[in-house]
Amino acid sequence: MKVNEDKKLLIKVNDMDNVAIVVNANGIQVNTEVYEDLIATENIPQGHKMALMDFEVGDEIIRYGKVIGYAKEKIPKGSWIDENKVRLPIAPPLEDIPVATNILKPMEALEGYTFLGYKNKDGSVGTKNILGITTSVQCVEGVLNVAAEKIKKELLPKYPNVDGIMPINHNYGCGVAINAPEAKVPIRTIKNLATHPNFGGELLILSLGCEKLMPEMLFPHIKDDNIINLQNEEGFEKMIDRILQKAEEHLKRLNKRVREVCPVSDLVVGLQCGGSDSFSGVTANPAVGYASDMLVRCGATVLFSEVTEVRDGVHLLTPRAINQEVGEKLKSEMAWYDNYLELGQVDRDANPTPGNKTGGLANVVEKSLGSIAKSGTAPIVEVLSPGEKPTKKGLVYAATPASDFVCGTCQLASGITTQVFTTGRGTTYGLAMAPVVKVSTRTDLKNKWQDLIDIDAGKIATGEATIEEVGEELFKFIIDIASGKKKVWADKWGIENAICLFNPAPIT
Amino acid sequence: MKVNEDKKLLIKVNDMDNVAIVVNANGIQVNTEVYEDLIATENIPQGHKMALMDFEVGDEIIRYGKVIGYAKEKIPKGSWIDENKVRLPIAPPLEDIPVATNILKPMEALEGYTFLGYKNKDGSVGTKNILGITTSVQCVEGVLNVAAEKIKKELLPKYPNVDGIMPINHNYGCGVAINAPEAKVPIRTIKNLATHPNFGGELLILSLGCEKLMPEMLFPHIKDDNIINLQNEEGFEKMIDRILQKAEEHLKRLNKRVREVCPVSDLVVGLQCGGSDSFSGVTANPAVGYASDMLVRCGATVLFSEVTEVRDGVHLLTPRAINQEVGEKLKSEMAWYDNYLELGQVDRDANPTPGNKTGGLANVVEKSLGSIAKSGTAPIVEVLSPGEKPTKKGLVYAATPASDFVCGTCQLASGITTQVFTTGRGTTYGLAMAPVVKVSTRTDLKNKWQDLIDIDAGKIATGEATIEEVGEELFKFIIDIASGKKKVWADKWGIENAICLFNPAPIT
Ligand SMILES: [Ca+2]
Ligand SMILES: [Ca+2]
Ligand SMILES: [Ca+2]
Ligand SMILES: [Ca+2]
Ligand SMILES: [Ca+2]
Repeated sequence: MKVNEDKKLLIKVNDMDNVAIVVNANGIQVNTEVYEDLIATENIPQGHKMALMDFEVGDEIIRYGKVIGYAKEKIPKGSWIDENKVRLPIAPPLEDIPVATNILKPMEALEGYTFLGYKNKDGSVGTKNILGITTSVQCVEGVLNVAAEKIKKELLPKYPNVDGIMPINHNYGCGVAINAPEAKVPIRTIKNLATHPNFGGELLILSLGCEKLMPEMLFPHIKDDNIINLQNEEGFEKMIDRILQKAEEHLKRLNKRVREVCPVSDLVVGLQCGGSDSFSGVTANPAVGYASDMLVRCGATVLFSEVTEVRDGVHLLTPRAINQEVGEKLKSEMAWYDNYLELGQVDRDANPTPGNKTGGLANVVEKSLGSIAKSGTAPIVEVLSPGEKPTKKGLVYAATPASDFVCGTCQLASGITTQVFTTGRGTTYGLAMAPVVKVSTRTDLKNKWQDLIDIDAGKIATGEATIEEVGEELFKFIIDIASGKKKVWADKWGIENAICLFNPAPIT
Repeated sequence: MKVNEDKKLLIKVNDMDNVAIVVNANGIQVNTEVYEDLIATENIPQGHKMALMDFEVGDEIIRYGKVIGYAKEKIPKGSWIDENKVRLPIAPPLEDIPVATNILKPMEALEGYTFLGYKNKDGSVGTKNILGITTSVQCVEGVLNVAAEKIKKELLPKYPNVDGIMPINHNYGCGVAINAPEAKVPIRTIKNLATHPNFGGELLILSLGCEKLMPEMLFPHIKDDNIINLQNEEGFEKMIDRILQKAEEHLKRLNKRVREVCPVSDLVVGLQCGGSDSFSGVTANPAVGYASDMLVRCGATVLFSEVTEVRDGVHLLTPRAINQEVGEKLKSEMAWYDNYLELGQVDRDANPTPGNKTGGLANVVEKSLGSIAKSGTAPIVEVLSPGEKPTKKGLVYAATPASDFVCGTCQLASGITTQVFTTGRGTTYGLAMAPVVKVSTRTDLKNKWQDLIDIDAGKIATGEATIEEVGEELFKFIIDIASGKKKVWADKWGIENAICLFNPAPIT
């Protein structure tokens, strides 16, 4: 990476790039001489692209060494290339892209790193000790929330080793097409959320009694003892009593659990980004990629996701698939989503937000190339459909929508026990089930949101730290968080986004 | 309606029916002589159908005077007709059904009925006085919930005339295909929820700042003063301060409001059912239909909904359309939903739940005929797409999914200030934004759920009360509830189901 060391105005990632990103907070003013022969022809805001050459109509615009689009008009050297001047390239056709051709030799193992986790009988390890109460249908939510308040007030203080209670409320369970082909997605997600490692193997399900998604559909061998059926109870007060009584049985067991020393290979870390900007791809995401490689070298499981954000860079990922089968599954997840969007009459450039564009991202290709940087350099050992649990350790592609809350929910179902979340514009997102480490792409954001951003990757742009340094800082912070030695800001404040299922099937 | 007066074992709705419903709680035992020449050939549970004649394969099975299906096998007189013996008829083809051919002459007006409501500047009248805080995107939910807890604890006690605070949290706003053709549905719903009559005309929007659904998309002329943009705030604590400060400004104004005498024509009442059984169509729903007619005769607005539940009886509704245009809109809403289900590869019989079937409903046709009874006999003056606000008073068909939470949310967006909810199996559903009156179809349920069911329509089946008597009881109860003189059970306990938007467009 090249930084203009003198003035720190521009950042250019790859030697082949014919655009560079404005680094400094106030942007570049018209007539500023950035280099000897590069003069700004207009004001360019921070995070946006400056033309490093004269573009003719149709010329390739290159960032990260890749074509992010074509010039829609003549663009003189020194001018601002905003999204209106960039024509979107076509998405890489899935049939033509190479698979499993670029597997790097295994990275050197990192030995000896441990964290303090809660060991579960199924071999998974939790980073929190939470009482999870799963609902089989939204009908029961109102009652459960009243009970949950009472549990927090009356029971939790008696069980100090328990971190909290998590009612898994969702919009599913009835009034849905339970036999639709795609119904398997939300059903699998609920099932896998219910058995999350941070719930300590304690299964407790609240059912109405006449819903489509009966608890037995989720867990054919579930003990009656772990199901509360509201239609079996004699009115509201009895329902509340019953929920509290069952909750206390579970709390007693959970309260006896203690953290034990576990190898970092027991960690399952999810990665995502939200409120991205032009810096995401040069600061936070590469630093996350470095931390991801360290985790993988320790034998941990790392999930990256967000189909619509990798779709345009998928030709860079398929070669990293560990074998043909994994590569084909990656392509089939992309194809599934292409079709899903087409049925909804949506094109893929629907992804970038106004905030992304204000932040300097011209289109989904540019966003995608930055987003993929989170995945580091490890081979992709497995590809998951939305909400599936991994069966392998290492770098895993978990196909999910890019929507922060839906991706978060799907990754939780896949069993992540910590999430790393990079943000440029700034979002206040948090999860109740697992800690979310917030990484800022710009130091401005960290300065503004001191009490929300956990790690600042913006210092990479200003030259204060390297990608490797921030990556290692993040790696160590993840271990402290997973061990309960430190708390992420979102957990300190109790910021919790609701569960949001991905339901591609109709409701009825 | 004919009840077997001697033994009260069977109920038959229409003289043409060749099946009847078992009324008594324990069902009918094999060999019971129900009438002189009608002997049970097997045990038949409560709510289920008994054959009143010998059926050959293919014979019409008639309930409510309509064909609910065809015999799949020989069914001897006196036997149990469960759902496995019934073949589903095809749905009425939309092109052939008559429109606006059966408008009854206007019903006699009911004069002089009033309630105590909160008058709004736009002419709407609220039944509660709530501070609504609308979110433009799910990202802000975690912060808003922390603020809402503080508002409840620290501010609300100072403003005793305010009934509560309602954060309108939802799954929409970003990570969605905002330009998809069907995106208009969730966007309209959020917009109309934000201006609900029970919020007293106070608009307050919490925005992240970089989401796709910017507040200006919802309200082009909104004053900056009514928007809180989290990305503009200097961290979490400042965000909370800012939300509390804005909330208090609004609470001060809301606290000055008083209930005033309003004609019942200012009421907007929504109707729906959930957890239906065989009794829904003979007790609760007809009683609700009677109350609906009384409300319409007072000049009130009554909404009925649930597309998948009226689809099979739509040929009974189109003739009641006030004119050709309204009838065609009704057909087009049905056609839209037919197509929506087809895209998801779902057939319409996906609607009935296991609980419906256990309750005796063989299929969607039988469920539909019972469900339509809620609409009484008034002409249909308007048809709304999901989440639209009505422009006319009288009986309105508001097209929504049948899902209780989605229907509830859409009806709230359409401006209902009270909802009537009939249930046979029993659901604990409640709404924070408007009171929900729970009507049971069976007395067994009322006896079991004394502290959840507001009105028992089961006494119609046992002959203790007539449809008209229960209908009038419900009508008067609605007025007391709307006036704040009585509270529904769900409000006494604080049972609140979450907002659940209908989003037929893809997420990204
Ligand atoms: Ca992202
Ligand atoms: Ca995201
Ligand atoms: Ca219903
Ligand atoms: Ca239901
Ligand atoms: Ca319903």
